[in-house]
Amino acid sequence: MEKPAVITYPIHDLVRRRWSPVGFADRPVEREKLLSLFEAARWAASSFNEQPWRFIVCPKNDAEAYGRLLGCLVPQNVAWAQHAPVLMLTVAKLRFSHNDLPNRHAWHDVGQAIATLLVQATALGLHAHQMAGFDAARARGAFGIPDGFEPVAAVALGYLGDPQALPEPLKEREFRPRQRKPLNDMVFGGRWSAPSLLLGG
Amino acid sequence: MEKPAVITYPIHDLVRRRWSPVGFADRPVEREKLLSLFEAARWAASSFNEQPWRFIVCPKNDAEAYGRLLGCLVPQNVAWAQHAPVLMLTVAKLRFSHNDLPNRHAWHDVGQAIATLLVQATALGLHAHQMAGFDAARARGAFGIPDGFEPVAAVALGYLGDPQALPEPLKEREFRPRQRKPLNDMVFGGRWSAPSLLLGG
Repeated sequence: MEKPAVITYPIHDLVRRRWSPVGFADRPVEREKLLSLFEAARWAASSFNEQPWRFIVCPKNDAEAYGRLLGCLVPQNVAWAQHAPVLMLTVAKLRFSHNDLPNRHAWHDVGQAIATLLVQATALGLHAHQMAGFDAARARGAFGIPDGFEPVAAVALGYLGDPQALPEPLKEREFRPRQRKPLNDMVFGGRWSAPSLLLGG
Repeated sequence: MEKPAVITYPIHDLVRRRWSPVGFADRPVEREKLLSLFEAARWAASSFNEQPWRFIVCPKNDAEAYGRLLGCLVPQNVAWAQHAPVLMLTVAKLRFSHNDLPNRHAWHDVGQAIATLLVQATALGLHAHQMAGFDAARARGAFGIPDGFEPVAAVALGYLGDPQALPEPLKEREFRPRQRKPLNDMVFGGRWSAPSLLLGG
């Protein structure tokens, strides 16, 4: 199943084909593929090259840790994420290592790292689905995340499953078309809300 | 000039070749390429599909707006960014549109959007360099950014220049090898700081 973005202007296939499924195949992810995902994330850009991203990775065959992470998700996410072969937690380091001052871009750069990981995942035939719906305090306790670090997002990752096999309402959700705002609503020219001349035709 | 990541595990070429130069060629960026950049960003993932990213785009031929954005940068960044053919500002919408509650992932998702844009830029032979070093309050005034939105990063974008033509210390900086922490420092298993079994060999 593919859900390529419905585009107005051409984009690279690796960007176009990324989407966030709720149905994963019962198939483990190869160790070497996981390593390539984190290697890709590692080379993301970050403010002062701080690399404030951390990943807690729980493959399903590490059943105890996997269950601990699953237990941090809200029930609506457990319903589908429990079938993903890999669960992860992204974590942000909130202060710069070189001077201990707050890093305004800590979360932003975790976002850059995971988006870069997603490109690599797409290249390897993998899909991921990030979740805001988890208990950050519980995750902190469950994995011993220290002060100065903050859980950011839970991530389910694996190969795409058979969408027809999903129960409703997940099945409906899986087939729902992807939607985005028009570029006019997000790309401005020299003044806020003024459409960029680029979009002028 | 290329500065591909020095990798331990294989990654896609579009991830490997991205880097943040300080030297840009005196060559405009084609309108259709800019449009593809924003189209790519548009299809990034975001919490509740909020798409909290906004882009203020100032090509150099819009000299007045370009100068206004340049005037928000710290002098160390003006020194090199003034030669980039395009300057941008990324902006985050801090609350969800559907319920006006704070969006914990607003900055994170702006990070995802710009990282996705960077993949498209690499695919089109373009480079970008994000800057934390700018005056956010001044940018707010200069572009009329309303309450509820927050300037995130300034971005210089264009084609790579001749690094040999850069003055010191920019030239030294341009040739400096790219560096990252080892994966052991960022990828953990079931417990914080415990190396993931993936990395066990």
